[in-house]
Amino acid sequence: VTPDDGDDPRTLTLDDFPVTWAVTTRWADNDMFGHLNNAVHYELFDTAINGWLVAETGVDPVTSPTPGVVAESGCRYLAELGFPEPLTVGLAVTRLGRSSVTYQLGLFASEQPGGTAAAVGHWVHVYIDRDTRRPTAIPDGLRSAMQRALVTRA
Amino acid sequence: VTPDDGDDPRTLTLDDFPVTWAVTTRWADNDMFGHLNNAVHYELFDTAINGWLVAETGVDPVTSPTPGVVAESGCRYLAELGFPEPLTVGLAVTRLGRSSVTYQLGLFASEQPGGTAAAVGHWVHVYIDRDTRRPTAIPDGLRSAMQRALVTRA
Amino acid sequence: VTPDDGDDPRTLTLDDFPVTWAVTTRWADNDMFGHLNNAVHYELFDTAINGWLVAETGVDPVTSPTPGVVAESGCRYLAELGFPEPLTVGLAVTRLGRSSVTYQLGLFASEQPGGTAAAVGHWVHVYIDRDTRRPTAIPDGLRSAMQRALVTRA
Amino acid sequence: VTPDDGDDPRTLTLDDFPVTWAVTTRWADNDMFGHLNNAVHYELFDTAINGWLVAETGVDPVTSPTPGVVAESGCRYLAELGFPEPLTVGLAVTRLGRSSVTYQLGLFASEQPGGTAAAVGHWVHVYIDRDTRRPTAIPDGLRSAMQRALVTRA
Repeated sequence: VTPDDGDDPRTLTLDDFPVTWAVTTRWADNDMFGHLNNAVHYELFDTAINGWLVAETGVDPVTSPTPGVVAESGCRYLAELGFPEPLTVGLAVTRLGRSSVTYQLGLFASEQPGGTAAAVGHWVHVYIDRDTRRPTAIPDGLRSAMQRALVTRA
Repeated sequence: VTPDDGDDPRTLTLDDFPVTWAVTTRWADNDMFGHLNNAVHYELFDTAINGWLVAETGVDPVTSPTPGVVAESGCRYLAELGFPEPLTVGLAVTRLGRSSVTYQLGLFASEQPGGTAAAVGHWVHVYIDRDTRRPTAIPDGLRSAMQRALVTRA
Repeated sequence: VTPDDGDDPRTLTLDDFPVTWAVTTRWADNDMFGHLNNAVHYELFDTAINGWLVAETGVDPVTSPTPGVVAESGCRYLAELGFPEPLTVGLAVTRLGRSSVTYQLGLFASEQPGGTAAAVGHWVHVYIDRDTRRPTAIPDGLRSAMQRALVTRA
Repeated sequence: VTPDDGDDPRTLTLDDFPVTWAVTTRWADNDMFGHLNNAVHYELFDTAINGWLVAETGVDPVTSPTPGVVAESGCRYLAELGFPEPLTVGLAVTRLGRSSVTYQLGLFASEQPGGTAAAVGHWVHVYIDRDTRRPTAIPDGLRSAMQRALVTRA
């Protein structure tokens, strides 16, 4: 099993995600195969997570004394996407620990509401003390936002 | 003088551009200085030009027998921009030749309507025959769209 | 368990990989935290896999009638890397099926020979028929190269 | 005339540049046309300038009290380049002022020594005081390196 498991990710729709985040695609996102390059999915997941956290909490991830750093990421690619399509990221928290949080992310073609995810990923942020670089407790403001996005996957 | 010249680019507002195109920024767009990396401006200009041409004409730049290739680009950076700000690209055609078109582009913080451009660039596309790679006439459908975006800069 | 499991990935050195591939880093690779952005790791893995396959087999992935598309990718981030460091990707095939291949990838600071991996990832390519988009057998030339990179992880 | 002018840039070879800097290309650098995306040229110019400055002077551009920020950039695209080709950036200083420096940059296919530039660009860095954000004198260590790369273009 992989961290994406539980419900079959191929059946996930945007309704399965507490948070949705709209993003635009770029000409340069498409690679030689004419579709969204696989690394772009991670740029979009990162953008949704950080954009949502900033909007919800006002915490600046760069100046925070306890930044979150990426410990692990992964993605399953289920269908092709590409510029110029606008996309929507679905975001859910699937595990919330003392110093780490795991997100599940879905990537959807915005113009196909109700459709299933074209990609499903996971993402682990570990919060660390800026100076000691050791794991530290997730700050309360961030934790509250994460709890509002918490879901249980079968 | 540079191709950006004419009106002082520092005074341009979005009202000076016949076409506006909304784009989103990404976490990874910001570089070590915490602002939009200079190369990202070109990704956004490219996205606005191609996104607008596809929307206006339906011509697929990849399968077209006469694709437009970039012959020259340039940008002046006037103010800092950065994730998570949404941005708007202003687009104008400043020169329309037989086989080449020159765009002027402005990059604006979407949340400051009426503000002056944070960056002003130019862009030259040359249309070529896919097989011979020689310059060829801009197809009529594209030319019509370009004419609608044509402006005269002092 | 994840597809990265088996030997503890934190102990892997470049000697554990049959193929090594040198890459350079870029100013824009570093994000606001001043280290290599997490999505860049995937760009480098992709570059090593495709660069090595092209060099070994001469097969052009773009014009091939049976291209390999990414079905899954993942990465664990173990230590910070960043521009201007040159990096080395270690590559091993850990599973070779009829139509799919799984790679394990390590990312190493080139200037610390003998050091352990700063990141360890996995990558699944599925070979498909260009027209039907259905999985197809990996072509013989590619399969031979993959077999030479095949390892057994405990 | 543009800042690229003077000698016809189409005749420049690597011998015309006091500094050369090797870079690698990536799978994702190629866009839908199968060649190096136009914005990648700027990532490589930035990498050569900053990589060379760090190597020559040891000055960390991020923590420096007087960082250099990009005021202007531009590129003329003369020939196609693309992954998996290794490339070489040629770098020359063409103007050295009190607080600003102008570079000319050439991009070359490494495997065609003696060939002419596939792209020629220019780049203006302005050094500013980190706190006041006002232009300030280029620090002596950097200025010495820049003087060693100074050329006169006809």
